[in-house]
Amino acid sequence: MGPGPINADPRVLRAMSAQLVGQYDPAMTGYMTETMGLYRDVFRTGNEQTLLIDGTARAGIEAALVSLIQPGDRVLVPIFGRFGHLLREIAERVGAEVHVREVPWGTVFTPAAIEQAIIETRPTLLAIVHGDTSTTLAQPLDELGDICARHGVLFYTDATASLGGNTFEADAWGLDAVTAGLQKCLAGPSGSAPATFSARAVDVIDSRRSIEAGIREAGDAVLPNRIRSNYFDLAMLFDYWGPRRLNHHTEATTALYGARECARILVEEGMAEAVARHRLHGSAMLAGVHGLGLSVFGDPAHRMNNVVAVEIPDGVNGDAVRGTLLEDFGIEIGTSFGPLHGKVWRIGVMGYNARKDTVLTTLAALEQVLRRAGASVTGGGGVGAAWDLYADADRDAAASDDAAVLS
Amino acid sequence: MGPGPINADPRVLRAMSAQLVGQYDPAMTGYMTETMGLYRDVFRTGNEQTLLIDGTARAGIEAALVSLIQPGDRVLVPIFGRFGHLLREIAERVGAEVHVREVPWGTVFTPAAIEQAIIETRPTLLAIVHGDTSTTLAQPLDELGDICARHGVLFYTDATASLGGNTFEADAWGLDAVTAGLQKCLAGPSGSAPATFSARAVDVIDSRRSIEAGIREAGDAVLPNRIRSNYFDLAMLFDYWGPRRLNHHTEATTALYGARECARILVEEGMAEAVARHRLHGSAMLAGVHGLGLSVFGDPAHRMNNVVAVEIPDGVNGDAVRGTLLEDFGIEIGTSFGPLHGKVWRIGVMGYNARKDTVLTTLAALEQVLRRAGASVTGGGGVGAAWDLYADADRDAAASDDAAVLS
Repeated sequence: MGPGPINADPRVLRAMSAQLVGQYDPAMTGYMTETMGLYRDVFRTGNEQTLLIDGTARAGIEAALVSLIQPGDRVLVPIFGRFGHLLREIAERVGAEVHVREVPWGTVFTPAAIEQAIIETRPTLLAIVHGDTSTTLAQPLDELGDICARHGVLFYTDATASLGGNTFEADAWGLDAVTAGLQKCLAGPSGSAPATFSARAVDVIDSRRSIEAGIREAGDAVLPNRIRSNYFDLAMLFDYWGPRRLNHHTEATTALYGARECARILVEEGMAEAVARHRLHGSAMLAGVHGLGLSVFGDPAHRMNNVVAVEIPDGVNGDAVRGTLLEDFGIEIGTSFGPLHGKVWRIGVMGYNARKDTVLTTLAALEQVLRRAGASVTGGGGVGAAWDLYADADRDAAASDDAAVLS
Repeated sequence: MGPGPINADPRVLRAMSAQLVGQYDPAMTGYMTETMGLYRDVFRTGNEQTLLIDGTARAGIEAALVSLIQPGDRVLVPIFGRFGHLLREIAERVGAEVHVREVPWGTVFTPAAIEQAIIETRPTLLAIVHGDTSTTLAQPLDELGDICARHGVLFYTDATASLGGNTFEADAWGLDAVTAGLQKCLAGPSGSAPATFSARAVDVIDSRRSIEAGIREAGDAVLPNRIRSNYFDLAMLFDYWGPRRLNHHTEATTALYGARECARILVEEGMAEAVARHRLHGSAMLAGVHGLGLSVFGDPAHRMNNVVAVEIPDGVNGDAVRGTLLEDFGIEIGTSFGPLHGKVWRIGVMGYNARKDTVLTTLAALEQVLRRAGASVTGGGGVGAAWDLYADADRDAAASDDAAVLS
């Protein structure tokens, strides 16, 4: 019940135990093409270039930034948590002139503030995290696509922490590039980074297309502005995932099986239904935390569904509580980074762990451990509040079914 | 039975279906530390910095080169096949001044030729492939460590294709950096890159150590020569795998389970025994190919144990033969790159596929398909020659056992 990685869905683990097939076996290339289609549904996009980067979520970020950014390009990174600092760091390393804006942890940016920063810095790329698990908040992105389009700025986000558990609309929000990972609401293991790129982003990337030595043919140019990485060269990855099937890395077959199964599970459930499930169980956890008499960190209007930042009560040793939960109850919850270190725990409710039994068990155990640690808690208040929320949700669903029958 | 990826050992797939544990769970950090030790045995090294890069074999190469090379550094890349071109390509992209030497495909370099090239180019790093599957040859490395030490050159090799199936001695050969992958003789899926770095290499890498924004503390410097990649920054990876456990990427847990099991299987068998197994079954395949009346490409003195390049007979359509083997017999063999394209098939005998039954079945099927394709083959000559070789090996083993009993 940490902020990710979390338990994988057993279906995903089972898919990953399937035997390998050859890299260019028609079954394998068929899986690759199918996986591209599945992630178009997950990202809610029609982008042809929707594929996997063979690495963790961070590899997806670096692939997007090193391929979209040329050394010297100006990049704007609005930072509202730890992973904004990571975007800044990676953009700097790939040679960008990075401009940052920061808001206090626990808050997000207004669209007007971002437009103002774009006007001031004239970037070629806006790079912003969608959901930052470090603060548990999600930055609203729905108005930023229009702003970027007006100013001729490419619009990139990392949706690792939010995708699948919170509304996400790559095309409707005007995104040019999105990267993600499997280890949060997608219910898989870290190690494969789904990503999608708009036609505009593909044009920028393909303008630096340079086929590698060893498979280059006469007439294939080596451009002076070729991408600084071979492994993360998206132009070559597009050729590898596309009909040319131009050799690049040896596909991480087991990771592909896992990423494919993660998307199959979500698409079978329906993206709206998956978001509603995370909202339900995340709200139950939130109600339970309040019901125990604890406070929650961060602007409640912009909380992600899938993680709650609980303020550690005065006089309670946060790490000792986490240790007892792990050792005696087998439940892991998260610590925090930077300004929140030692001040909040982060409890995840996501992916395969977004369930009633996990929410109630965690609240029951937390009550016991807090009481033992000498904190003042409301006996039964956590589980009770969550039970009430579930009962209300059941009543609403029944009423809605009745209304559907009567109409 | 291609040149890799090949079927994974079922033990590895089973290990990869285990449920995840949290990133800093003592069980997980215990697995990481255990895996470092196992790969020390596999690489035959005492190097403290022996770890996994979360990506395919190519990710391991890029991590080594981007971390060891500063822009403008001179790098010598002797090329004897496709993957030498890849080392050159990656070294160029990370900013090196790359000098190459080439020998015709099917041959390797003499130590004297490499020393001469070092004298001419004065590189800071020698980067050379150990076994290049494109030509099936292995470059002897045992004399190159002394040469590099005499000239103050760092010595790096990629052993993806050879490790586990051919003698490999990281320390005895004086290597400063070695990278590999799981999908050849290690009997796992592509997606994790074991790597090891000598104290000298670690010094070079740590001189560029720069902790990332977001977890940097007061007093942590940002160096002007920091490594151009965040994901592949080995200095940060050392901190992450070491006792500091400084947060970097979210470990690809399932890939770690797989990499750990690959090494456990090899270490249980013994590295010398694993090499002997590859030598036995590779020799049987070679004898069988000759027994069918086919020719083998490449200098026989420097063949890898685990892959045979078979010259496609005149008048035979190589892709049609491969197609029939795959579709009617369920056996995949490899095509070839560059100057060998259309001229040779590559048959792998490695990892979980280095077995008597796979060798005999492949030879039996190949005979049938070649006959049907109108080629002249010696009926029974392939399987017969392999059977003879296995019988000789059994006799030698029995004689050796007798001698051991008598002595």
